[in-house]
Amino acid sequence: MLIVSLMRLGDEEKYLREQFPNVTFEFYKHPAELPEDTQRKMDVLISFHHAVDEAFIDASPNLKWIAWYATGVNSLPLDKLEQREIKLTNGKGVHAQQLSEWLFAYILDDYKQLKSVYQEQQDKIFNGKRITKSLDEATIMFLGTGAIPQRAAAIAKAFGMTTIGLNTTGHAVTNFDETYKLADRLSLYQQADIVVNVLPETKATYHLLSLEDFKAMNDQTLFVNIGRGTIVSTQDIVHALKNKHIRAAYLDVFEEEPLSKESPLYELDNVYITSHITGNGASNRKKATQILKSNLEHFLNSGSLIENVVDLKKGY
Amino acid sequence: MLIVSLMRLGDEEKYLREQFPNVTFEFYKHPAELPEDTQRKMDVLISFHHAVDEAFIDASPNLKWIAWYATGVNSLPLDKLEQREIKLTNGKGVHAQQLSEWLFAYILDDYKQLKSVYQEQQDKIFNGKRITKSLDEATIMFLGTGAIPQRAAAIAKAFGMTTIGLNTTGHAVTNFDETYKLADRLSLYQQADIVVNVLPETKATYHLLSLEDFKAMNDQTLFVNIGRGTIVSTQDIVHALKNKHIRAAYLDVFEEEPLSKESPLYELDNVYITSHITGNGASNRKKATQILKSNLEHFLNSGSLIENVVDLKKGY
Repeated sequence: MLIVSLMRLGDEEKYLREQFPNVTFEFYKHPAELPEDTQRKMDVLISFHHAVDEAFIDASPNLKWIAWYATGVNSLPLDKLEQREIKLTNGKGVHAQQLSEWLFAYILDDYKQLKSVYQEQQDKIFNGKRITKSLDEATIMFLGTGAIPQRAAAIAKAFGMTTIGLNTTGHAVTNFDETYKLADRLSLYQQADIVVNVLPETKATYHLLSLEDFKAMNDQTLFVNIGRGTIVSTQDIVHALKNKHIRAAYLDVFEEEPLSKESPLYELDNVYITSHITGNGASNRKKATQILKSNLEHFLNSGSLIENVVDLKKGY
Repeated sequence: MLIVSLMRLGDEEKYLREQFPNVTFEFYKHPAELPEDTQRKMDVLISFHHAVDEAFIDASPNLKWIAWYATGVNSLPLDKLEQREIKLTNGKGVHAQQLSEWLFAYILDDYKQLKSVYQEQQDKIFNGKRITKSLDEATIMFLGTGAIPQRAAAIAKAFGMTTIGLNTTGHAVTNFDETYKLADRLSLYQQADIVVNVLPETKATYHLLSLEDFKAMNDQTLFVNIGRGTIVSTQDIVHALKNKHIRAAYLDVFEEEPLSKESPLYELDNVYITSHITGNGASNRKKATQILKSNLEHFLNSGSLIENVVDLKKGY
């Protein structure tokens, strides 16, 4: 059994070799360093690099399982994996904590007016009159009710917020006060002070949101995107912000990444930009390796996987 | 029964008059507008203005109860109230939500490096490499375990943090993983990534923290003060920050308020200042009026008060 990682895993390398003494592990710093012969022979691949495309899969004839260390699998050739019957697991849940922390960092930056407050400090103004909005009077609506929004909704409840979750069927989910069908969203947006996209990129979510969505929101709405940038075209989100269909947005993901210096988003004064970093965490590699370990034990025993198996048809 | 408020209460004025038709309410915009005769006759006072000093109490011979709409009662002449047997209730709990929101706004601003991130946005730099610290690996220590730290600790637990509370006796309190005696704090500080002062100002807490405290903390500690500024002298906190005994501080309260433009705190690059605003909230007046209502019902029936009664000896 040959397992190849397209990145170095630090302390986790020794850990994996100790846990699985009969498995051969090879760790490369970059996909370009992978020898052709190794690629032909490998059984399992660890990566979350965009180099893993259709041609890469074709050059890996023995590949049976990809342990993807990120959550979003949209850059992978899913049809090809299905055709070749290659199993895919992802890092679902690994990033829920970090993404939730970033979400509340955004929300509190906005609700507590931290940028204005910091300007006052720089101007040495002691303004005791400032009154800020309170989260316990706010309703937060999540597009998506998976592992990440469930974690975030638990924190929202601790802050006393009202939580609404939208998913395909409208089924009830832990930590959400109310759940509805995504398809009914236009008639629901007015209830939300904050709308958060946490949907994965799939054929069904590509450009799911249009100008119509933003027009249906309250003009005081704060929009947050920590899912995938392709949920809305750059043109539509810029138009919505410029025309104040919504009050402001915090965006971590974009239709094109990295964001170009010429992006019209940089010219708006009601958008706050981070660089697709809300999933980054010092412990992610460790957490994803724990998922790999559980799965590998089963894979060696029975050829099956038990955690975070991606449905190749659904794409998550 | 004459109840005088030294501030206007908006919608709450009509509400109180409707709830208590047999009580006379008078609402003034400012203490200076209060007629001497009214002051002599009033039974109950609603205020949180520093004008309520010893002379003011002397000029209010009929006063039986002060319904203080703030939590901190340190500006009141407590000895005089005790001597005159004037009851005192405060706004404890009214500000817990707002203060907790500000606390996490501070912590997430720091942990998620929001100021650096915003600078990158302004420089149009898309830096996908940033990795930030995670709250679920952090320990937060509260000096004080009352209503406000209990509310904040509940949110800290939702973020997965370890919570330590220090109080006079070291008794266990809801939402704190561990509690210890305040007197033992020097040997406990090393456990804390974040130290938050939420203690009221009393004779026992005045300048409770000294340089020795900050030297005993980890040099990576984040210090937050949302209690009272007199917990530490300006000189000591400035020295601790300048000499990096701690990493940084978020301060909402100060030994002297308003903070002078000449304050040395404004010259430091590891302190973030707000203007004693973390208790401000649009619903505070409404919440404090609900406490007044409960108490007034009992006061009219039996002369006793049931909620938020301040121990005049302890000062909270």
